[in-house]
Amino acid sequence: MDQFAIGVDLGGTNLRAAAVSASGQMIEKIAAGTDLTQGPERVVSDICACIESLRDRHKNLRLAGAGIGVPGFIRMAEGFIVGSHNLPPLNNYPIRDAIEHRLGTPVVLENDANAAALGEKWIGAGRDVDDLVLLTLGTGIGGGIISHGRVLHGFVGMAGELGHLTVVPNGNPCGCGNAGCLEKHASATAIESMANLLALGEHLSAKDVYDLALQGDERAIRLFESVGQALGIAIAMLVNIFNYPLYLMSGGVLAAWDFFYPALEKEVRWRSFSYRNTDTRIGKAALGNEAGLYGAAYLPLQAQKAQTA
Amino acid sequence: MDQFAIGVDLGGTNLRAAAVSASGQMIEKIAAGTDLTQGPERVVSDICACIESLRDRHKNLRLAGAGIGVPGFIRMAEGFIVGSHNLPPLNNYPIRDAIEHRLGTPVVLENDANAAALGEKWIGAGRDVDDLVLLTLGTGIGGGIISHGRVLHGFVGMAGELGHLTVVPNGNPCGCGNAGCLEKHASATAIESMANLLALGEHLSAKDVYDLALQGDERAIRLFESVGQALGIAIAMLVNIFNYPLYLMSGGVLAAWDFFYPALEKEVRWRSFSYRNTDTRIGKAALGNEAGLYGAAYLPLQAQKAQTA
Repeated sequence: MDQFAIGVDLGGTNLRAAAVSASGQMIEKIAAGTDLTQGPERVVSDICACIESLRDRHKNLRLAGAGIGVPGFIRMAEGFIVGSHNLPPLNNYPIRDAIEHRLGTPVVLENDANAAALGEKWIGAGRDVDDLVLLTLGTGIGGGIISHGRVLHGFVGMAGELGHLTVVPNGNPCGCGNAGCLEKHASATAIESMANLLALGEHLSAKDVYDLALQGDERAIRLFESVGQALGIAIAMLVNIFNYPLYLMSGGVLAAWDFFYPALEKEVRWRSFSYRNTDTRIGKAALGNEAGLYGAAYLPLQAQKAQTA
Repeated sequence: MDQFAIGVDLGGTNLRAAAVSASGQMIEKIAAGTDLTQGPERVVSDICACIESLRDRHKNLRLAGAGIGVPGFIRMAEGFIVGSHNLPPLNNYPIRDAIEHRLGTPVVLENDANAAALGEKWIGAGRDVDDLVLLTLGTGIGGGIISHGRVLHGFVGMAGELGHLTVVPNGNPCGCGNAGCLEKHASATAIESMANLLALGEHLSAKDVYDLALQGDERAIRLFESVGQALGIAIAMLVNIFNYPLYLMSGGVLAAWDFFYPALEKEVRWRSFSYRNTDTRIGKAALGNEAGLYGAAYLPLQAQKAQTA
């Protein structure tokens, strides 16, 4: 009987789930909404309903388990989310055990960017390497580090918080308590904030700023160079720390790649001896916003492999 | 027959070697000078003489091999040193194979700070953890990362270059090509350079600056706070990246711990959510300048264990 697993991507607004075969084929994908107003039990119930629905429709396959990607810091041992701004009712709630208990199948909880990094390693832009770093460039910036083919967790589960690397020591204030975090200088939100500082227009979205750059607006073009510099400072440090072969980026900000990448690459070249002297690759992730679904589904499959190895 | 290994610490001036038992007891230690004027063959010959001398005097023990810690970037596969400012004649010379061929015993080449980090993990301040980061604060700043009990190498062998983390984006220029590297803001050399900028005195050493701080000189005290801030920015990033339980520092600059640590800790607390919310420890390494000898000796022992596991 062939195996499959279910990957769940839980966001503050959207809830998505996918059935993925053990060889990495997406079998079926479903979407629902996240309702945070009724407390954590309701979220758990909705997640279970998605998983059960996929399980029931694929009874010809054996379910290895479910992986759930969530925004926020994870305490792996406890199966808790902590410090999530997008899912405040779930903070410190035993979400993993609640779902596992109701479904009777193994459940792995993971940070969403970590899950996306694992998806890229499994069947995406990183499938030819064992070690990579992923930056997800959206409204915030997440990070995932894959070391020897597995998510790097640290001792609690909070590793890979790359959006909170300090790239400007006294830069823009961040909700994490720091100032000058990468995500306050290179996320979509940071792009909108910079557009506002430059008085480029009223309530511009990052997409509007990108359109201005396309039209040749010098200030918008310069803004994306600044985004590239911030990313370059961070990636140069990651290269100097890890000497991994591959650094990937994903997320909506990638649309502006041609405007920010030259400044990024120049910064990394300048700041990293090992980048200049090795075949280190910096590139785009391949799986778009499905990386997290693939990676979440791979978590129980990988855990099973490790047990039987 | 009990086993032992030989650890070598090759510096630009000094050459040290030690016989260490498989259980981590230092059996004998010898010291010689490094003569770079006669080319790489002479250095190889001196290293081999040290190893042979220790081997011959401990024939009652079985030699597992030799580990050699060197300043500079390592290409692990080739057994080369590259980009070393302290050992220029050895750059790109096949030093590992030359020594291995002459001695007929396994030889492992390693970056000196990586070797020190492994020594601290084996029998030093990190013996109770599997994952740690070490910063060596000397004339420069080196770094070593221990992941699952082993040195993190990256794909070429250049991982852990923590002295080249950017802590001041347009800060002091560095020989690596970057500006604002940690080692240009927190090493003994950086302390001397800042003392010169402050006109604290003529040709002051880092030790002289420390003595001024001890005497209550406000500018010298402020200088060490600045050192602590630079180290704190770097360590906060390492905590956010790795979420490892332990961050160690070693080297001569540690003498000024009481002057720089409060600023360092304040900076890490500010800049790292996961530091504030976990039992992350920052502390002093335990083995002084013998960490590199212990760690270098442990390299062939660890390689042997991995083979027989």
